[in-house]
Amino acid sequence: MTTILRGNILHTPAFGRLETAPGGFLILEDGVIEGVFERLPERYAACPVTDYGGALILPSFADMHLHAPQYAMMSMGMDLPLLDWLDTYTFRTEARYEDTDFAREVYRQLARDLLAWGTTRVVMFASRHTDATLILMEELERAGVTGLVGKVNMDRNGGPAQETTEDSIRETLRWLENCHFEHIKPIITPRFTPSCTDGLMAELGKIARERNLPVQSHLSENTGEIAWVKELHPDCGQYWETYKKYGLWKDGALMAHCVHSDRREQEAMAEAGVWAVHCAASNLNLCSGTAPVREMIDRGLRVALGSDVAGGETLSMAHMTAMTIRASKLKQMETGAPFFTVPEALYLGTAAGHRYFGAKGGFQPGDALHAVVVDDSDMPASAKELSLAERLERILYNMERKHIKAVYSEGRLVHRA
Amino acid sequence: MTTILRGNILHTPAFGRLETAPGGFLILEDGVIEGVFERLPERYAACPVTDYGGALILPSFADMHLHAPQYAMMSMGMDLPLLDWLDTYTFRTEARYEDTDFAREVYRQLARDLLAWGTTRVVMFASRHTDATLILMEELERAGVTGLVGKVNMDRNGGPAQETTEDSIRETLRWLENCHFEHIKPIITPRFTPSCTDGLMAELGKIARERNLPVQSHLSENTGEIAWVKELHPDCGQYWETYKKYGLWKDGALMAHCVHSDRREQEAMAEAGVWAVHCAASNLNLCSGTAPVREMIDRGLRVALGSDVAGGETLSMAHMTAMTIRASKLKQMETGAPFFTVPEALYLGTAAGHRYFGAKGGFQPGDALHAVVVDDSDMPASAKELSLAERLERILYNMERKHIKAVYSEGRLVHRA
Repeated sequence: MTTILRGNILHTPAFGRLETAPGGFLILEDGVIEGVFERLPERYAACPVTDYGGALILPSFADMHLHAPQYAMMSMGMDLPLLDWLDTYTFRTEARYEDTDFAREVYRQLARDLLAWGTTRVVMFASRHTDATLILMEELERAGVTGLVGKVNMDRNGGPAQETTEDSIRETLRWLENCHFEHIKPIITPRFTPSCTDGLMAELGKIARERNLPVQSHLSENTGEIAWVKELHPDCGQYWETYKKYGLWKDGALMAHCVHSDRREQEAMAEAGVWAVHCAASNLNLCSGTAPVREMIDRGLRVALGSDVAGGETLSMAHMTAMTIRASKLKQMETGAPFFTVPEALYLGTAAGHRYFGAKGGFQPGDALHAVVVDDSDMPASAKELSLAERLERILYNMERKHIKAVYSEGRLVHRA
Repeated sequence: MTTILRGNILHTPAFGRLETAPGGFLILEDGVIEGVFERLPERYAACPVTDYGGALILPSFADMHLHAPQYAMMSMGMDLPLLDWLDTYTFRTEARYEDTDFAREVYRQLARDLLAWGTTRVVMFASRHTDATLILMEELERAGVTGLVGKVNMDRNGGPAQETTEDSIRETLRWLENCHFEHIKPIITPRFTPSCTDGLMAELGKIARERNLPVQSHLSENTGEIAWVKELHPDCGQYWETYKKYGLWKDGALMAHCVHSDRREQEAMAEAGVWAVHCAASNLNLCSGTAPVREMIDRGLRVALGSDVAGGETLSMAHMTAMTIRASKLKQMETGAPFFTVPEALYLGTAAGHRYFGAKGGFQPGDALHAVVVDDSDMPASAKELSLAERLERILYNMERKHIKAVYSEGRLVHRA
């Protein structure tokens, strides 16, 4: 089946390279991109066209790190020191997901709101609860969100949110046996080194290897955490080695934050094929620091973006893309590393995440369509004719849900406003 | 005439002091606040009540520094170095306001959008054009926005946006003769020291003194600018002295930015009664630095917030309030100065601006009502009953125009959504 979308098409097929097709045509066969055309090729002349008029058609966003249960406490308690915040909000909130009705309510809203903000690919932490994690996967699948979800493992230092080592392993296996979703797959998720005993880490490494599953965790988010990890693993020279020791440091592993990853840790990531997930808003909200993202990219690391809800304050990945530019401006003031341009940041917030999932990224032939249609007609009158690049920058900094008119995920229209 | 509003009332009558009245009553006589009551006093039992149900009722925002003509170029070209940005966008855009039809279109939209974002008090730079400046004042007055607007004066270094010294003075006088608005008043506006010859500065100081008019300008925004001012005025030890020299450094003068104001400059402000307008987003967007706002407040300076559109990327003062907290977290990481709490930042974004205009700030008896009604019912389900303080924090970080249901300015309902 041929689908043709018409509008002002913008995408970044490579880091920093913005391509535009004003009033162009995006042609799909069974939801898979055939190509972007400035004029409609003759052979499609008889096909119906979905005309989005003056709207912008962009790749959808990919949120490569967020904590689904924390959606219920988003943007609260951010005045608190990190440990108080964890005790007062995070662990108590996560413990509530024992209640599957509560899980259903929050996760249904989360799935809907992700699409309303234009995010169609995700990599998520759930809570420790197997049943709630399966509900989350089911709600995402039903809404049309795609990606990876992990039942969280934590058998120490987790207050009411933790579990025993035995429960953690048994429930992980039960969870994996029940993951039968088409577009939402499991990812092994040790919360972070301080939350997992050596025995649990070893077992998770084994499961990931035997079942060929990807891994996600946190790395070098703040200096206190790094010192704590050092205490727990005096045999490991650096934080990342605590994952390597148990087989959790592997190609395609996603490590959130990496704010304080130095040259050696970055090189270890690049060598192993580990990805860094940059969470600009969270790093500022929690006073973690400013991640050296330009340096990582120059070193060949693969980097994508995450909202880190609820360390981050919103699901809006447009906001996170803008925050990535802001954080890079801070870094420039600090170290002189050039800040990210809009096409660079857009790539990180869209194509980079899609590439993690094996797509080419941008609107390239052969990829299933992941796109958002953005109506910016309520933006101010301007003093001159605007280029699509100018309109892109303006709406990235000003995106409200009202601007997102349609969302396509895996080739299907999944949201209309 | 008695008006009674019911809802979840929050306000900050003093810096950092949040007061709440869940399901409370805000009582007005002819638009002027009588008081906030937890229960409806007996004597009002017969009066009709406007019941906003579960919505939050907050003081409206005050945007104490923005460039009205730059609304037409908001969020564009922020990848450019400052001087290129000024040449490519700012001066060219401002030159367009020679065209009064264009001015009318942009300024009408600006006035409407300010209210849609909950801002009812402003202090603005217009362009050099007298007629467009009067149109701006007329459109603000008509919409129900209150505050101060300045015809910009710049007789050097302004490219196509500048004027001759004679024109600048003559047009300033013509503008002042035609300012007949009830809620929008004039403010003397030398753009900044590098834009104004000594002769023009002296004349503006004289006009401000003779007509008892307030003054606004820019101060110590970035290090390049400070060096430039030093070159232009080798006789002045510090930037602020270039304003003092011409009678422009006076009680109630508003100085935008003050990013690099040191102890001596801050003390000069405190002594003279000059206000600092903190523009957190702009300072980050333009790589200006992080202003020492906590230090200023500790030193007794009066500080309020500005969007600095188009150095800032949005009219949303909720966003600017959140950015003020973020910028203060950066400053804490740098110097250890404690970051701003939500009640502190809310005060700066609301009550501080209202106090500039002679109000007490917060919902205190005797003040004309300036308020926004915020519906946060689309925020995520939560794991527990939320306090009003928690809901305030969440919506400040997540405000979209859709959340703002009603806006009151100077005691009148001026916007409904």
